[in-house]
Amino acid sequence: MDLAQLGLLEASALLRHKTVSPVELTRACLDRIERSNPHVNAFVTVTAEQALQQAREAEAEIVHGRWRGPLHGMPLALKDLIDTAGVRTTAASAVFADRTPREDAEVVRRLKAAGAVLLGKLNLHEFAYGGSSVPSHFGAVRNPWHRERVAGGSSGGSGAAVAARLCFGALGTDTAASVRHPAACCGVVGLKPTYGRVSTRGVIPLSWSLDHVGPLARSALDVAVLLEAIAGFDPLEPTSADRAVEHYAQAAVAPSSAWRLGVVRRPYFEQLDPDIEVAVNAAIEMLARIAAGVHDVELPYSNLLLTVLPAEAYAFHRSHLQRVPGHYQPMTRQRLQQAAQISAADYVHARRELEHLRWHADEAFAEVDLLLTPTTATAPIGIEAGLLESPLSQQGTPLEFRNTHMFDVLGLPAISVPCGFTRDGLPIGLQIAGPRFAESRVLALAHAYQQITDWHARAPPLG
Amino acid sequence: MDLAQLGLLEASALLRHKTVSPVELTRACLDRIERSNPHVNAFVTVTAEQALQQAREAEAEIVHGRWRGPLHGMPLALKDLIDTAGVRTTAASAVFADRTPREDAEVVRRLKAAGAVLLGKLNLHEFAYGGSSVPSHFGAVRNPWHRERVAGGSSGGSGAAVAARLCFGALGTDTAASVRHPAACCGVVGLKPTYGRVSTRGVIPLSWSLDHVGPLARSALDVAVLLEAIAGFDPLEPTSADRAVEHYAQAAVAPSSAWRLGVVRRPYFEQLDPDIEVAVNAAIEMLARIAAGVHDVELPYSNLLLTVLPAEAYAFHRSHLQRVPGHYQPMTRQRLQQAAQISAADYVHARRELEHLRWHADEAFAEVDLLLTPTTATAPIGIEAGLLESPLSQQGTPLEFRNTHMFDVLGLPAISVPCGFTRDGLPIGLQIAGPRFAESRVLALAHAYQQITDWHARAPPLG
Repeated sequence: MDLAQLGLLEASALLRHKTVSPVELTRACLDRIERSNPHVNAFVTVTAEQALQQAREAEAEIVHGRWRGPLHGMPLALKDLIDTAGVRTTAASAVFADRTPREDAEVVRRLKAAGAVLLGKLNLHEFAYGGSSVPSHFGAVRNPWHRERVAGGSSGGSGAAVAARLCFGALGTDTAASVRHPAACCGVVGLKPTYGRVSTRGVIPLSWSLDHVGPLARSALDVAVLLEAIAGFDPLEPTSADRAVEHYAQAAVAPSSAWRLGVVRRPYFEQLDPDIEVAVNAAIEMLARIAAGVHDVELPYSNLLLTVLPAEAYAFHRSHLQRVPGHYQPMTRQRLQQAAQISAADYVHARRELEHLRWHADEAFAEVDLLLTPTTATAPIGIEAGLLESPLSQQGTPLEFRNTHMFDVLGLPAISVPCGFTRDGLPIGLQIAGPRFAESRVLALAHAYQQITDWHARAPPLG
Repeated sequence: MDLAQLGLLEASALLRHKTVSPVELTRACLDRIERSNPHVNAFVTVTAEQALQQAREAEAEIVHGRWRGPLHGMPLALKDLIDTAGVRTTAASAVFADRTPREDAEVVRRLKAAGAVLLGKLNLHEFAYGGSSVPSHFGAVRNPWHRERVAGGSSGGSGAAVAARLCFGALGTDTAASVRHPAACCGVVGLKPTYGRVSTRGVIPLSWSLDHVGPLARSALDVAVLLEAIAGFDPLEPTSADRAVEHYAQAAVAPSSAWRLGVVRRPYFEQLDPDIEVAVNAAIEMLARIAAGVHDVELPYSNLLLTVLPAEAYAFHRSHLQRVPGHYQPMTRQRLQQAAQISAADYVHARRELEHLRWHADEAFAEVDLLLTPTTATAPIGIEAGLLESPLSQQGTPLEFRNTHMFDVLGLPAISVPCGFTRDGLPIGLQIAGPRFAESRVLALAHAYQQITDWHARAPPLG
């Protein structure tokens, strides 16, 4: 049995029944990382010794009947923006190349409490600032489906590691696209939860008002299990929501009510790759068969992220930028220097707009239960092309995150689930979004879609 | 019987029992306004006809047994920053001299629903931007205790109108001091509620993150009745708290548990007028007799308001300032022009700090139930002196609001209650603050203090 080909929940069942030990599972992942990571460049730090130690501890507990839950003994990995005590956390930047946090991020603390095995840290675009076009201090992540193509970003390492079967699940962060874009590019599932659902404490910020931590895995159910472990109130984090966590996996498999689905055509279907259009429309037709109805709806659109994100990014980086400007990648430095020009008044207005839009976001769901769009307008581009500035959409936002950023702005949960391939064999993502804190509903539709399709069963050449 | 000398609740009892009619009560106030307002300059607009019409309607309802509650038929007045449909709302500025809103502010809607009679609009410092030192388009408010002294600000008209018995209660707004400072200066009670407790929708903003609407009246119980009418969730306002409203007056008279009181000495007792020090320490001694204990405590102090307030004020005023710069008072214009220089990064950091401080504000109440400080460090200054820039405290904030602004920053409820007089016969205020949404507790201690003292029974020469 090739253990790495198992899904997270499949592997979990074998762990629970002691058919497979956490140490075996961890060794299988470490072997694959050793063999395949040089081709995808997903891991920037592998903590083999600690992982094996965690696996041994999990094994001892499970053997003695102390099973903690579905992540007990499960090999996972973390975007290298998420603090890990005693393990360097670089944000893929020379600025933080030697930075070793003393404390775990809250999500890491929760994963450890769930008994997970942490394999190491995953590559990203420097400081998560940009989609495909910002380089990493460690070089570009390569797409497991096509090594000359980008893996998407900024959590490209998370998407590639999951797709290439280097781990059973990963955490990423999403400020404009960064969990869903690599999920779509790599043919895996990635969820950005509701703003405040998952604590961002101990995660190097890109933009405080917009940052979300979210899980990536190969199925919606696996993602649900990861979300359940990391979600929840953090009394030390002002943006954290004091609201009970649901049993997401259980809710996702429950017999579903017939949802009313809304398709957001404008601008989400404009400037679209024709292959993506075909695949997403086919997915919508599939879903129409299990839904109570599908019709086109409107969603507010704003470019306020183009003010809020750079202003907050610059606020965080200002002191580092003054101290070690040469440690930044030239494109990051240039973006941050432009951001320094933003006035407080422009930021105040953008932030006010954000708060109003977020306050009224659920109004989009007056007549539908869930929204559908393509996750991205374009398929993964070539790595060389990815180093150039991204083309703009007609709306003025980079085309790369035009279809995702409003869910960060609105703070709504949104998932990307594989829904086909381009003629070049590159993955395509369907985006499903729901009202605030309706993660269960979003996951349930994603799971239902995966039950009637088999896109997620295909493995990439490097998987 | 001189009706105007009654307290709000006393007048309310007479209205309810039909001993006095709303029309009589309203006429009594209008007569006093005609006679005394020229001396204090508290009202800038008197809506006599509308008030009498509202009074007649209230009278008809009460006569027919349809009593709406303690504000039914009660003559009140509003700071001229609070929108009133069909009645000009100027913010005491030439910029808005001809501005007549089409809609009532949410608090006005609630007062009208409670059956209140609205006598008109009250003077303030232009756009509420400043304590004593920003002039009004309508000239300075004069203190009813001493006409050559300021009434405090920015809600000086609200403080003076209540003290001079021109109305039974008033609404003001408080961003750094503006309800509590005039309450202290005029010898009345003024409450700044928890941030989010009272909707600010339809109130001309000074600083969105810091603005609070609050009531002024002659006793803590009267203030409790006003708060109960205006508090509550506003689904159209993103900063509004979705939390049930308490029966504040009922809670304030309930037999009280023995509170643990904390005195915040630093910096609140530094640079203090010696008469204020004596009066506040005497008040603390009085309260110690009815408390479970009194001891000194610390409270976080920050100057972040000096970044957040001007940045948000400029964001609101930018377009008007470009269009009609000459319509602003020179000092307001100069302040706003300085505020234009604030960078988004500085604002982002200040706002982050505000959110963290607010999130952790209740930690100050780990060992005490309520905090005590003097409301102001100085007695009301002369009106001519008030036109100069306010002296700075050792902390760098203007001394004028050094003792009040942290409760706006922290978003905590804080009340000013009269606690004595200077040797010159000028009123002194005791400030009582509590944890978030503990308005009942703050009001209960203020009421208990008023039960054992009679400072509030004294009327000013113009009262």
